[in-house]
Amino acid sequence: MTRSELISEIFNKQSFLCVGLDTDLTKIPKHLLDTEDPIFEFNKAIIDATHRYAVAYKPNLAFYEANGIKGLQALKKTSDYLKNFDVFTIADAKRGDIGNTSQQYATAFLSPDGDFNFDAITVAPYMGADSVMPFLTGPEKWVILLALTSNKGAFDFQFLKNHKDDKFLFESVLETSKEWGTPENMMYVIGATQADWFMKIRQWVPEHFLLVPGVGAQGGSLQEVCKYGMTKDCGLLINASRSILYASSESDFVEKAEEEAKTMQQDMAELLKTCKHKSL
Amino acid sequence: MTRSELISEIFNKQSFLCVGLDTDLTKIPKHLLDTEDPIFEFNKAIIDATHRYAVAYKPNLAFYEANGIKGLQALKKTSDYLKNFDVFTIADAKRGDIGNTSQQYATAFLSPDGDFNFDAITVAPYMGADSVMPFLTGPEKWVILLALTSNKGAFDFQFLKNHKDDKFLFESVLETSKEWGTPENMMYVIGATQADWFMKIRQWVPEHFLLVPGVGAQGGSLQEVCKYGMTKDCGLLINASRSILYASSESDFVEKAEEEAKTMQQDMAELLKTCKHKSL
Repeated sequence: MTRSELISEIFNKQSFLCVGLDTDLTKIPKHLLDTEDPIFEFNKAIIDATHRYAVAYKPNLAFYEANGIKGLQALKKTSDYLKNFDVFTIADAKRGDIGNTSQQYATAFLSPDGDFNFDAITVAPYMGADSVMPFLTGPEKWVILLALTSNKGAFDFQFLKNHKDDKFLFESVLETSKEWGTPENMMYVIGATQADWFMKIRQWVPEHFLLVPGVGAQGGSLQEVCKYGMTKDCGLLINASRSILYASSESDFVEKAEEEAKTMQQDMAELLKTCKHKSL
Repeated sequence: MTRSELISEIFNKQSFLCVGLDTDLTKIPKHLLDTEDPIFEFNKAIIDATHRYAVAYKPNLAFYEANGIKGLQALKKTSDYLKNFDVFTIADAKRGDIGNTSQQYATAFLSPDGDFNFDAITVAPYMGADSVMPFLTGPEKWVILLALTSNKGAFDFQFLKNHKDDKFLFESVLETSKEWGTPENMMYVIGATQADWFMKIRQWVPEHFLLVPGVGAQGGSLQEVCKYGMTKDCGLLINASRSILYASSESDFVEKAEEEAKTMQQDMAELLKTCKHKSL
């Protein structure tokens, strides 16, 4: 999906919600465990219930790999099923390796001929340019680079300030990496728990989309993130996982997930009024 | 495998060779492509040919994921097959995510009940303590944390010097993270192309094992690495991938791989004489 297609979807649906498919067999409704593929059945139900209110879906690979081959088969089916909808799909994989190896990861998750065919993949920046650039494989494929994450461990290294130009590590990551791609093929992960920093981050990357986890269960505020992070094109994908997936652990999980997604979409429609998008 | 078991294997085999199973369908001998599972058949042949000369095996996940479900089935069979040998096994996965997600990755790659049951996993440090510590799951399970990598991109961020204490990022990673585990359950990735830095690195982590890629195809020198990186317990695992796997692309690939592994083992036996290991 291209940037302009993504922006169209956002304004059509009046939503910039990304549903994080962090599907955990210990948390899904018990009656699904009797089906042949509980992970996929759960995902399919969640996608069916939420796709009118969401523009993006983001399976986190860990939850599939934890179930071995069966989990990865469920991921393939989920990736295939998402093709039925006009949604932006993200392999939340946080990969990154030396150049020829990152090339293999790009084949794994972005190739139209592969088992896992996503629009975007999350990538870790530690190994630098040649670990990231092989993922920039074409006009409709994206890298979403970790910059400032939502967890406590973000404070271990991401806020180390460097000598050369007095920047925090995450600022150096933004400044250096924005030369590797463009706002048409790169986004950044910025945790919602870091709302104080969105204004400064927008100085470094005024146009790039930001993928924002950490609203809800992790304590971030949607309003705060939008106040400082939103651009005229919206420029944000807000991820919600647990609050939607596990809105109920009973047989009404579909209705509760839909309600939760719809509530978030309605909040987002209000916030989108502040965008000065040309198509409005 | 525990640290003392690993050290015993090293001195028994007189080798600290790790064979990197970066199995690429475009590079393996053509006649294997007619078999039902070419990736596993190749790996099995390489393991059979080299296990007398190697103490560790390290499949890089990217090469399996690039082949989708089939590739991951080959990884499972490889992981199972390695259990027949007294070797240290490493999932070269470079994972790392927020705490509850890293926990899922740990289940995926370190759980004795899972499809992929390895002794160790490589982990990226960018997201800090809570992204790394969930992998420290038990006395025979290891984290191998990226510190100073062998690729050109290592110079993008790993050498940023921080204000606070004048350390490079990779030094801060070593200093901070060594508190998260012990030399019994943590190792570090240090590229062989960074040989100049081994003496300084040993000031930070005098006892930890270092996993060293980059000898051979990437230009690092085994002798230089050992001169400054070796400890009384050896303290090194030197990885070789392409130089062994693709020593020949013809039907003699098994013999050529064995020859290459044996040559490296013999060089290593010489270098081990400089260790002052108590069992010698």
